[in-house]
Amino acid sequence: MTASASPVGARPILRLKPKANARAIRHGSPWVFDNELVMDRRSKAIAPGTIATLEDNDHTPLGTVAVNTASRIVARMLDRDPEAVIDADWFTTRLSKALSLRERAYDAPFYRLVHAEGDGLPGLIIDRFGDTCVIQPNAAWVEAHLDMLTDALVQVTGVTNVLKNSGGRGRTLEGMDDADAVLRGSAPDAAVPVEMNGAIYMADLTGGQKTGLFFDQRDNHAFVAKLAKDVSVLDMFSHVGGFGLAALAGGAAKATCVDGSAPALALAAEGAARMGATDRFEARQGDAFAQLEAMKEEEAKFELVICDPPAFAPAKAALEKGLRAYERIARLAAPLVAEDGYLVLCSCSHAADMNAFTGACLRGIGRAGRRAQLLHSGTAGLDHPLLPQLAESGYLKALVFRL
Amino acid sequence: MTASASPVGARPILRLKPKANARAIRHGSPWVFDNELVMDRRSKAIAPGTIATLEDNDHTPLGTVAVNTASRIVARMLDRDPEAVIDADWFTTRLSKALSLRERAYDAPFYRLVHAEGDGLPGLIIDRFGDTCVIQPNAAWVEAHLDMLTDALVQVTGVTNVLKNSGGRGRTLEGMDDADAVLRGSAPDAAVPVEMNGAIYMADLTGGQKTGLFFDQRDNHAFVAKLAKDVSVLDMFSHVGGFGLAALAGGAAKATCVDGSAPALALAAEGAARMGATDRFEARQGDAFAQLEAMKEEEAKFELVICDPPAFAPAKAALEKGLRAYERIARLAAPLVAEDGYLVLCSCSHAADMNAFTGACLRGIGRAGRRAQLLHSGTAGLDHPLLPQLAESGYLKALVFRL
Repeated sequence: MTASASPVGARPILRLKPKANARAIRHGSPWVFDNELVMDRRSKAIAPGTIATLEDNDHTPLGTVAVNTASRIVARMLDRDPEAVIDADWFTTRLSKALSLRERAYDAPFYRLVHAEGDGLPGLIIDRFGDTCVIQPNAAWVEAHLDMLTDALVQVTGVTNVLKNSGGRGRTLEGMDDADAVLRGSAPDAAVPVEMNGAIYMADLTGGQKTGLFFDQRDNHAFVAKLAKDVSVLDMFSHVGGFGLAALAGGAAKATCVDGSAPALALAAEGAARMGATDRFEARQGDAFAQLEAMKEEEAKFELVICDPPAFAPAKAALEKGLRAYERIARLAAPLVAEDGYLVLCSCSHAADMNAFTGACLRGIGRAGRRAQLLHSGTAGLDHPLLPQLAESGYLKALVFRL
Repeated sequence: MTASASPVGARPILRLKPKANARAIRHGSPWVFDNELVMDRRSKAIAPGTIATLEDNDHTPLGTVAVNTASRIVARMLDRDPEAVIDADWFTTRLSKALSLRERAYDAPFYRLVHAEGDGLPGLIIDRFGDTCVIQPNAAWVEAHLDMLTDALVQVTGVTNVLKNSGGRGRTLEGMDDADAVLRGSAPDAAVPVEMNGAIYMADLTGGQKTGLFFDQRDNHAFVAKLAKDVSVLDMFSHVGGFGLAALAGGAAKATCVDGSAPALALAAEGAARMGATDRFEARQGDAFAQLEAMKEEEAKFELVICDPPAFAPAKAALEKGLRAYERIARLAAPLVAEDGYLVLCSCSHAADMNAFTGACLRGIGRAGRRAQLLHSGTAGLDHPLLPQLAESGYLKALVFRL
């Protein structure tokens, strides 16, 4: 499905129920749920991805929204201006604003260029790897405007290649397929080297997790690298070596990367090789919990242990179970940390906030018979800006303890 | 008053009331309040600063504590070991542990060396400026062991000069005087240059606020400096130029520092001069609120505005009033920020947590008719470690918005 800019007057109108929280929307809340809207036959017939005008119950326009009646989030606020036309110029303006922030903050064009609601582009993720951008269209309106978006993206950034990654969890909730595609140029035929904090990461832009590399931990990698000089490092759930390779760049004596994925570990090893650090790099493939138990049996000790697991509590329903998993990770990892060593515990769970996550970590550390200083509470880097009105957009937490 | 290490058996004993939360203390809570203790005639007669053994109501020892019956915090946990002897070796061990963290993280010996409970030394602050340390003894037991501490400090760090600063607010609550002193060596006869993030700060170790310079914002200065290249910067409540000089080091076109203190601004100007940046530096002395209003009248605009005010909500009683003050700061500062510019709002109030402070900032920004992305939530640097069981120890918050 594709869309072209339609005249404002011809747009469908979505109306809030009398009891919906129009005030929250006026104050910047970007999502309108199905139970907040008058869903008559006409509203229900709006095609997914259509641009509409949102009105409160008194017919006062609140803004320009994207509609998807197949999602629980029926309307996503695109523009506070109810007269806004969602055309090539509109995309160019939003993308230019996003680009200017990244160009100010980073020396090289490797970053998350668009972080969805945080950049005023709901449901859209774009990661940039030099002259290639990877788009994750996680909302129907993005899919419907993909040509227009891609043109604007090429114009604003000058990139040669634009890939579409359809692996986002959000697409299922929006009722969309999972077919990847090359939108412009071509897909790289090998993993792309990305330099961050002096480390070299190999990003697989077509076969990898998410868009090939996680940029969000960049600042936390840098923090950990400062603690790594001359010490032994264990990087659990390492993926392509995020913390482990950063620690090697910071002068670590040895970094052991553990992950369930052999391809990810192979990319980590390639990164270490390009850094000339193969002799300081070790990979162990296997289930993280089993590996932690095994290393405890071996009485292994590291000065610096990092655990950056996948989201154990992606949604509220999984919160209690997720927090128990984080506690277990902390309990299993703490015995591997040498006296006065460092333990870094991360969570990318939306549902577990900083306080809940910290509490789980401390329970785990305490059950391992250790005591902790808290040195740092990190979040995602500035290429992952937050819409403050959307608590969900702050998902990443990295706690640095000294035991 | 001075103390020497006394044999454990001869120590007084403090006993918890039956209803006191012994579990919280076992889990790491470091403070015991007067209403949690059996305060009989014998307990009440314990001299401030005395070392004692804490027991639960069943006479089970919980640890070694420092006593001050003149404070609401009657007992502060010094060591979980009830047999611990608080002597020169004990101080040496604690100070060495604190030093090893800082030496790992920083290239030069300028940092907070001891951050009280966070470093296992309750009520004690030590800032280091090269070969000079400034001690803030904010609890009676520190005052009572000052000779022992100073000897250990000189031995562990090798510093030549040790100064005592008695300006801490905690001393009043502990019933202590405010007399400064030179404990070893001599006081510098001029402000000391301190390099952080490429900027040069002039620290007045004898006449300045607190211990002469605030090290806690170091990481947040670095973050802001990355955004500062070629832009105009307004640093409100600048003190000796914390954010403003960091921005100049980051390549700012111009930095305007505003503070109520003429001596602080003179030190900022001297720092700018030593950086060769006098032509890019401007100082405005005056009340911050009045200056903000005046600049709004002038329709002044800056790409980067920082407000790092004193604690408006130092204690819970002042929370509501403090949050209104933070909201007002945000409301007055937001109009001075250019379109797509950056606004950095800081709080060093213990009582206002991150959520409450963020809410106040957003209300202020909203009332100024602006909308914001949240790029970063910063806290104090790792030379300000937290005892996780003591929520109060996490006081510093720095929010970076883009408007």
